[in-house]
Amino acid sequence: MHPQRWGDPAAASALPESARGLIELVFGIDEKPSAQGAVPPEPVIGADGVAALAAVVGDEHVLLDDATRALRTRGKSTPDLLRARAGDLGDAPDVVVRPADQGEIERLLAVAVAHNLAVVPFGGGTSVTGGLVAARAAYDGVVSLDLVRMKALVSVDRESMTATLEPGLRGPEAEALLSEHGLTLGHYPQSFQYASIGGFAATRSSGQSSAGYGRFDALVVGLSVVTPSGTISAGSAPASAAGPDLRQVFLGSEGTLGVITSVTVRVRELPAVKEYVGWRWPSFDAGAAAMRTLAQAGLLPTVIRLSDEAETAINLADPSAIGQDNPGCLMITGFEGAPSAVAARRRAVSALLIELGGVDLGEEPGEKWAHGRFDAPYLRDSLLDVGVLVETLETATFWSNRARLYADVKAALETSLGEGSIVLCHISHVYETGCSLYFTIAAKEQDDPLAQWSVAKAAASDAMIAAGATITHHHAVGTDHKPWFAQEIGPVGVQVLRAIKSSLDPAGVLNPGVLV
Amino acid sequence: MHPQRWGDPAAASALPESARGLIELVFGIDEKPSAQGAVPPEPVIGADGVAALAAVVGDEHVLLDDATRALRTRGKSTPDLLRARAGDLGDAPDVVVRPADQGEIERLLAVAVAHNLAVVPFGGGTSVTGGLVAARAAYDGVVSLDLVRMKALVSVDRESMTATLEPGLRGPEAEALLSEHGLTLGHYPQSFQYASIGGFAATRSSGQSSAGYGRFDALVVGLSVVTPSGTISAGSAPASAAGPDLRQVFLGSEGTLGVITSVTVRVRELPAVKEYVGWRWPSFDAGAAAMRTLAQAGLLPTVIRLSDEAETAINLADPSAIGQDNPGCLMITGFEGAPSAVAARRRAVSALLIELGGVDLGEEPGEKWAHGRFDAPYLRDSLLDVGVLVETLETATFWSNRARLYADVKAALETSLGEGSIVLCHISHVYETGCSLYFTIAAKEQDDPLAQWSVAKAAASDAMIAAGATITHHHAVGTDHKPWFAQEIGPVGVQVLRAIKSSLDPAGVLNPGVLV
Repeated sequence: MHPQRWGDPAAASALPESARGLIELVFGIDEKPSAQGAVPPEPVIGADGVAALAAVVGDEHVLLDDATRALRTRGKSTPDLLRARAGDLGDAPDVVVRPADQGEIERLLAVAVAHNLAVVPFGGGTSVTGGLVAARAAYDGVVSLDLVRMKALVSVDRESMTATLEPGLRGPEAEALLSEHGLTLGHYPQSFQYASIGGFAATRSSGQSSAGYGRFDALVVGLSVVTPSGTISAGSAPASAAGPDLRQVFLGSEGTLGVITSVTVRVRELPAVKEYVGWRWPSFDAGAAAMRTLAQAGLLPTVIRLSDEAETAINLADPSAIGQDNPGCLMITGFEGAPSAVAARRRAVSALLIELGGVDLGEEPGEKWAHGRFDAPYLRDSLLDVGVLVETLETATFWSNRARLYADVKAALETSLGEGSIVLCHISHVYETGCSLYFTIAAKEQDDPLAQWSVAKAAASDAMIAAGATITHHHAVGTDHKPWFAQEIGPVGVQVLRAIKSSLDPAGVLNPGVLV
Repeated sequence: MHPQRWGDPAAASALPESARGLIELVFGIDEKPSAQGAVPPEPVIGADGVAALAAVVGDEHVLLDDATRALRTRGKSTPDLLRARAGDLGDAPDVVVRPADQGEIERLLAVAVAHNLAVVPFGGGTSVTGGLVAARAAYDGVVSLDLVRMKALVSVDRESMTATLEPGLRGPEAEALLSEHGLTLGHYPQSFQYASIGGFAATRSSGQSSAGYGRFDALVVGLSVVTPSGTISAGSAPASAAGPDLRQVFLGSEGTLGVITSVTVRVRELPAVKEYVGWRWPSFDAGAAAMRTLAQAGLLPTVIRLSDEAETAINLADPSAIGQDNPGCLMITGFEGAPSAVAARRRAVSALLIELGGVDLGEEPGEKWAHGRFDAPYLRDSLLDVGVLVETLETATFWSNRARLYADVKAALETSLGEGSIVLCHISHVYETGCSLYFTIAAKEQDDPLAQWSVAKAAASDAMIAAGATITHHHAVGTDHKPWFAQEIGPVGVQVLRAIKSSLDPAGVLNPGVLV
């Protein structure tokens, strides 16, 4: 990826003229060119540290050049992009190291402890919560531990329907290897094209098909983790009553407790059929109630998402179906699997949705969503180019608290971003007991867009915690959510995590400053 | 409960004459009367400790009498019963304390730390793994913290389909309170009639309807736990990416990290219909393969269990259907829910099972199983009365390892128990990726039945760990599984649990000697 933008430059597209017209009308166009030729600071790591790292992985896998370090700088949140666009690469690692296997990682962590080097495990680099920014003050250098060489499909267990994957595999790479066996993971977060298996596990990612395939943490049946105190393999059965579930300690640990070196996941047959169908609801409340009914009836499609009135209007699927004269909310339902199972599930879901007041819009809006499902990050870059700040945040709560949480976070964002800002929301992950809420904001960039967003983000986060919701449903904690995470889990929760951290990583070399 | 027997004496029945004849034939009848009039040792706790406890809960809730202490002695494993039958109540607590609420528990833990008292949280007393036997040597007394007064249904959230329950509620009490709201937990382990909500959570219980309702740990969306370092409430959303899942640290913690004071669980509508159907399979392998196919097709009934050839023969459901001339394995499938959902699911499951070679035996064997589903522990007492040792143990693994695990554990038990012993097995919990194996053994009691069982249990446990399986699918670790649990999670796993324990309970007063 480019340090200042999302994804593959060849896949990025300029803002369409029609959209540009709309943007000009709403926000005004204010071209914001990115700084050119920015380079990261000189590496501060000592020669003995570099030599010790090279002794483990070989000289060719210890990289100190500016371009490589620039590409491992921070993640892909809007603040990350704003800093990079302004030419600030101050958080660049001092060195990028690429181990070949678990044994090398074990030895690299020993080197890090011996040489007082902070270690930031690096997968796809798609963090949007500051998960790749080590607090460097106390260390003699920051190592980006790039897992790019660990991309094997280690094994497939067709009978148990599990597969063991190395952490450096990106989403499409993992799917390509599994598809050779007729299998799929079915995990499609918006970052799918770049994010990695290790990152999915370390951050408890959830994909757009979570209703059908499950969150990533629910797919994991086992994982291996290298810590400075030794290596652990957790997960000896599909389910167990043998004590606390240690898998759940390392899932979501964001590189602070160890480096995930393999993940064994539940897999499914590659779906023969994929069908996406749009539905119209008279209101966000009505659509959300329908989602709840489906979830509690055990009748979820593979994909289900519902845009609120504002998001529906902006992302207008079909002006004749949902538009100014016919306000409402767009729901997308997706069905994947064997033809007979898809037909049966689609029939049952459709019957229930019609009974609840939904209007079937056919496959066109569904296909349109499916076609563009990974494109939003590119659009964000195009909007930043014309001075429009775009960012997302998300949370989750129980059904009975959904309406309050929605209203409170929306109000917090609108109030703090001020007049002329746009706040959109959708529900894209549902459970028997509750759902996620995913907000997208757009606002005209002010003189200090970082400060502008920081105020809004804090107001939204405060509203989440005040409502008793979680600070993040699938974006993880990183550095950005840290203060609110501590409020969410309370002092005893923080104490538990610190105790585990101190025990496994007494020197504190692993991703310092992240999580707790 | 009686200290020497299971459950309600009024519900216990003498061995039927027909069974007695069979037992005589196989093992010989060897009447083993229980010791009469055994009393626990004198309490060793000092008067100041008792006074401090009483200052928290009131004199009437601090009980030192023999009968009360005898009933809180150990759990209900066969070794526990054998010791009690022999008159050994040496592990009795010194005092039984009954707090009214979370605040009292917080103050009781402070008293325990100040007076160096071990604290054993007590719910239903149905542990079968030595989970209620504190290592008392280092303490100035053992307190049984009986949660019997904490039996409230705290709240019901009809929209989110969750309920918050106090830990002292026994299975039937919780179901009775929920049924007033038209709801059910659907959690029916064999210990259902006595086991408690707090115990279900502390031991990761799994019920006979786990295929339909989920394991208990999967039902928990939140819980509150009092530790000597403070109280924590974990679980702010149905799912979250906010760090490690702290609920999963306290689930399965078996009273060693804190006292669970409330549990918020997912609930379901009370089923309008319950149908149980028997199926015959030509072999255990064929039946297991069918279970796997159902699980991986997402077509599980509410209840599914499969007896191996030996268990099928012993528990002969219908001699004309499955018997000497027609060997095979009995499967029970159960369907619970709304009539239309039950009909649809039963139809789909039946079609698949017939396609796979199953023979529909109709509802009679199913109803027979459902009728006697909680009776086995009473039968065990009757068999102990006539000198037949009966015990159970269980494990779980991935599908590809099932046949090996079954063969290895069965061989380990048969070899160590010697000629004339009986080893039965069934699968009663299935997942997409694997299943549980539940073994029942019967053998003629030798002179030292405790030693006799100890050898067999160790051999079976060694076989589980050697096969890479878990030491327990739903019975927990307690003291009995501790050595194998340490092997299962490895030294880094043990280190993590010790670090949490040392941080939350630095004085080590909570259930010492259990888990790690």
